[in-house]
Amino acid sequence: TVDYIFKQIFKTALKQLEAEKKKELLVSRKKKSEDTVININGEQIGAGTPTFVFGPCSVESYEQVAAVAASIKEKGQKLIRGGAYKPRTSPYDFQGLGLDGLKILKQISQEYGLAVVTEIVTPAHIEEALDYVDVIQIGARNMQNFELLKAVGETNKPVLLKRGLAATIDEFIHAAEYIMSKGNENIMLCERGIRTYEKATRNTLDISAVPILKQETHLPVFVDVTHSTGRRDLLLPCAKAAIAIGADGVMAEVHPDPSVALSDSQQQMDIPQFNAFYDEIQKFMKQYELKA
Amino acid sequence: TVDYIFKQIFKTALKQLEAEKKKELLVSRKKKSEDTVININGEQIGAGTPTFVFGPCSVESYEQVAAVAASIKEKGQKLIRGGAYKPRTSPYDFQGLGLDGLKILKQISQEYGLAVVTEIVTPAHIEEALDYVDVIQIGARNMQNFELLKAVGETNKPVLLKRGLAATIDEFIHAAEYIMSKGNENIMLCERGIRTYEKATRNTLDISAVPILKQETHLPVFVDVTHSTGRRDLLLPCAKAAIAIGADGVMAEVHPDPSVALSDSQQQMDIPQFNAFYDEIQKFMKQYELKA
Amino acid sequence: TVDYIFKQIFKTALKQLEAEKKKELLVSRKKKSEDTVININGEQIGAGTPTFVFGPCSVESYEQVAAVAASIKEKGQKLIRGGAYKPRTSPYDFQGLGLDGLKILKQISQEYGLAVVTEIVTPAHIEEALDYVDVIQIGARNMQNFELLKAVGETNKPVLLKRGLAATIDEFIHAAEYIMSKGNENIMLCERGIRTYEKATRNTLDISAVPILKQETHLPVFVDVTHSTGRRDLLLPCAKAAIAIGADGVMAEVHPDPSVALSDSQQQMDIPQFNAFYDEIQKFMKQYELKA
Amino acid sequence: TVDYIFKQIFKTALKQLEAEKKKELLVSRKKKSEDTVININGEQIGAGTPTFVFGPCSVESYEQVAAVAASIKEKGQKLIRGGAYKPRTSPYDFQGLGLDGLKILKQISQEYGLAVVTEIVTPAHIEEALDYVDVIQIGARNMQNFELLKAVGETNKPVLLKRGLAATIDEFIHAAEYIMSKGNENIMLCERGIRTYEKATRNTLDISAVPILKQETHLPVFVDVTHSTGRRDLLLPCAKAAIAIGADGVMAEVHPDPSVALSDSQQQMDIPQFNAFYDEIQKFMKQYELKA
Repeated sequence: TVDYIFKQIFKTALKQLEAEKKKELLVSRKKKSEDTVININGEQIGAGTPTFVFGPCSVESYEQVAAVAASIKEKGQKLIRGGAYKPRTSPYDFQGLGLDGLKILKQISQEYGLAVVTEIVTPAHIEEALDYVDVIQIGARNMQNFELLKAVGETNKPVLLKRGLAATIDEFIHAAEYIMSKGNENIMLCERGIRTYEKATRNTLDISAVPILKQETHLPVFVDVTHSTGRRDLLLPCAKAAIAIGADGVMAEVHPDPSVALSDSQQQMDIPQFNAFYDEIQKFMKQYELKA
Repeated sequence: TVDYIFKQIFKTALKQLEAEKKKELLVSRKKKSEDTVININGEQIGAGTPTFVFGPCSVESYEQVAAVAASIKEKGQKLIRGGAYKPRTSPYDFQGLGLDGLKILKQISQEYGLAVVTEIVTPAHIEEALDYVDVIQIGARNMQNFELLKAVGETNKPVLLKRGLAATIDEFIHAAEYIMSKGNENIMLCERGIRTYEKATRNTLDISAVPILKQETHLPVFVDVTHSTGRRDLLLPCAKAAIAIGADGVMAEVHPDPSVALSDSQQQMDIPQFNAFYDEIQKFMKQYELKA
Repeated sequence: TVDYIFKQIFKTALKQLEAEKKKELLVSRKKKSEDTVININGEQIGAGTPTFVFGPCSVESYEQVAAVAASIKEKGQKLIRGGAYKPRTSPYDFQGLGLDGLKILKQISQEYGLAVVTEIVTPAHIEEALDYVDVIQIGARNMQNFELLKAVGETNKPVLLKRGLAATIDEFIHAAEYIMSKGNENIMLCERGIRTYEKATRNTLDISAVPILKQETHLPVFVDVTHSTGRRDLLLPCAKAAIAIGADGVMAEVHPDPSVALSDSQQQMDIPQFNAFYDEIQKFMKQYELKA
Repeated sequence: TVDYIFKQIFKTALKQLEAEKKKELLVSRKKKSEDTVININGEQIGAGTPTFVFGPCSVESYEQVAAVAASIKEKGQKLIRGGAYKPRTSPYDFQGLGLDGLKILKQISQEYGLAVVTEIVTPAHIEEALDYVDVIQIGARNMQNFELLKAVGETNKPVLLKRGLAATIDEFIHAAEYIMSKGNENIMLCERGIRTYEKATRNTLDISAVPILKQETHLPVFVDVTHSTGRRDLLLPCAKAAIAIGADGVMAEVHPDPSVALSDSQQQMDIPQFNAFYDEIQKFMKQYELKA
């Protein structure tokens, strides 16, 4: 019928408009074909060699962070992560040291020559945090906290944006667009596992999201092997898979004494485990680099 | 066997420990056995008779909201919903009228004698919004925006908290606890569908969450039939199911001309559909009331 | 471009073909607009008044089934369920009594005047089972065991087809089509919860599947409140929701002593709980019937 | 505190009980610590070097399978896959050539010196199939078709068992146990993606299932990169990730002309794509082997 034909023409036109709209996204590969490379503390993120971001889940004390920082520095790595503001399921769980945590991170940063990656959870904290952090992390629970995305988009700090717990890849890309639409082009995406029915792991690492994100956007893509699995025994194999599939970086949690950690005690590596992890991944990387 | 007996003792002890932890939550039924009843504009929410919250997805103009308000008032209902700040997947989608939208809602509220339910998306907007709104809605994407939860917890406005897209019931309850822990006891929970593999509906209405939330907490529980299904043809049967299973209220979107709506055009009812929906649900309610 | 236009024309044509294909499904409402009504043991299933199917998870002994049968008969109900072949996760769990179980069911059927609903798990069992059963149940794990579907499609026994653990509604409908395409038109569909990330319930009852299945097909639709929730405390509210949303029947498990049940001990009702459930649901039904 | 100590004792005891139960599984690593190696057509599966299984989704004609077989043989590979019995969502979709398909596979097997992997969907087909096939595949939809599992467990053919669409890892392991409990020890597990909310891929490849299955069982573990992604552009990166994480083999679909394929036309590689895929994966493997 004529009605049907018209309807189809409209649909087609609509789809074309949507396709063009996608083409317009600032984060899209269509808009900019070459890879975005972000320089942080001398590390060229997205330039071909995987970057590592290690550190404790939460900042608990100067000594705790320093122990990890020393181990990171010793390995020649350039970044450290640690949470000062912790989004926790219960209001009665440890909420992070806040500004005191940022101060510890800053001090560590200066003493060990490491760039600091830390989560900011609300626009009101940004201004204060700018003096203390090198990379602003947006956590999974805030991936669609659009006011926060816009606010970090107005800063000139690199942003590490984590995928939401049940966010589609399309929603993830649009969340990055919120940031870039405000002028901040230094965005790193981080796959951290999605929520599924499977309970053998804390979340399900959606490894194929990595090549999709690399195709669809020009941004560096990280894999957080700690939160995606929630299991220490899976950190190494998952880090290898991440690198093999083309991730620009890997994130993993390290704590000097995980058993007394105030958050995520089950999944952080201690220092000897960290050393073993790093040795193995370096061996893997060495063969892997031959390919390039 | 001895093994079996030990196992049972362990299980029992474990459950007791968990139960004790839960007992401490302010929102829990164990802490307060009687139902929380919230009085808004003369409507006793949670007192036994289901409450309805109708209105457009977004506030687009005075005329648009007024058309819906007139229809709500005519039915003797007391609340209206409408979004002034719209969390949208893309930064290039309509973002809501903001403060102008709140002003329209306030004017409508005064002219039609309706209480206004509207979403607030960031702590910075709260103070300004307090003069314009009767109920603060926290949307699904912000269910774990803990700074926002704490901020609304410090106001004395009733809060309608929506379940996150992939939040567990336990996380949902703890999100409510964030609000109540700051002193605000007037909280309504709203099941709005969860994200699953099934694509026949926009989300999957988790109807059994209603009796679980009623058991575990003393708070009123709503069902948003619009967002849980995303289909106009399912609004009426799902509203019946919600009432039958014990929901304290039902939320549904109404727009004078859904085809030109700036958001959610596929799922809002127009005024005649709204009238038919309301008639049918009233008929259903009348028989249902006999039971009491 | 021309390429693009052609591509769209092809897509459109393809979609139309698919739509027509759907129209051709024998189970579809488009093929047959009136409701299919199935007469089993004097019960008119799908004719307006909800049907109930109660019984133990597994047949364990004559006495066990007889105790439940007596209670069902006392209530004036006409069907009993019970598993003789049990699909269990582990090969070391109780696998059912097999043919001996069918014989117990047959004896009960004759003594109490109840029609027997029981699961068949492989084509090779069908011929033998035909003498013992009134309704063949196809379990969730076998919803896409297409050889089994075709085999029951070649019998003249009514079939109760359960939705797969992660089956889409579309796959569910096509599974029913496998049966009907072989000539058996007496099919009942049964929503029994889908697998999601939420663990407060064993599965997530997809209540909105009921009106969708009623729209898309002409078949009676049941809700299994036991397997969808896995919780005794949710059976009654979910049964009410199922009836309110338009289900043609409700299925629930009853065992004389659930604590010693060889399967599903956590979720079956004992006889006093069954009596209370039945009283409440009858009260609910009485008001509900007024509507018609 | 005393409470805490009790809690720890309980937890430990519980875990021990569960661990003991698991220890009893024949497929478990606890029962047999060394890797199971399966010799098929001279290929040592599970012995360290990844095995590849290529071939069309469905057997459509002698010429079609021969074209793929020639390409596989040319690469020095030893196995070919192809479906003669196709479990399809709709009864009106191509259902496979059945016995004629098996005969084609057998002829190809003899002419090209390749071992045949093909799916069997019901116990009644097994005896007939034994003369034609080298490896029996159990498809995702039949992972919990326990009668089929038991029946293949009674043969002496190697079995490739695919994970169900929404099966937990625990259920997957127990499905393998059904087979082994009947005496057949030559079982290969195959991760093929799980059903989640994400629609950018056909399923979500659960890559971390590979190291978990390797830890929990002594069986070889494959990854089906075709069904897990449903996208030709993701086959190569996902194959690399599979090998890097420790998979014993990779499965992918190849068709001489995917555009006319009777099933899965969107996701099969044509011969030039297959050649390119194979070259790339061999390059990747060469560096990778250095590590050993």
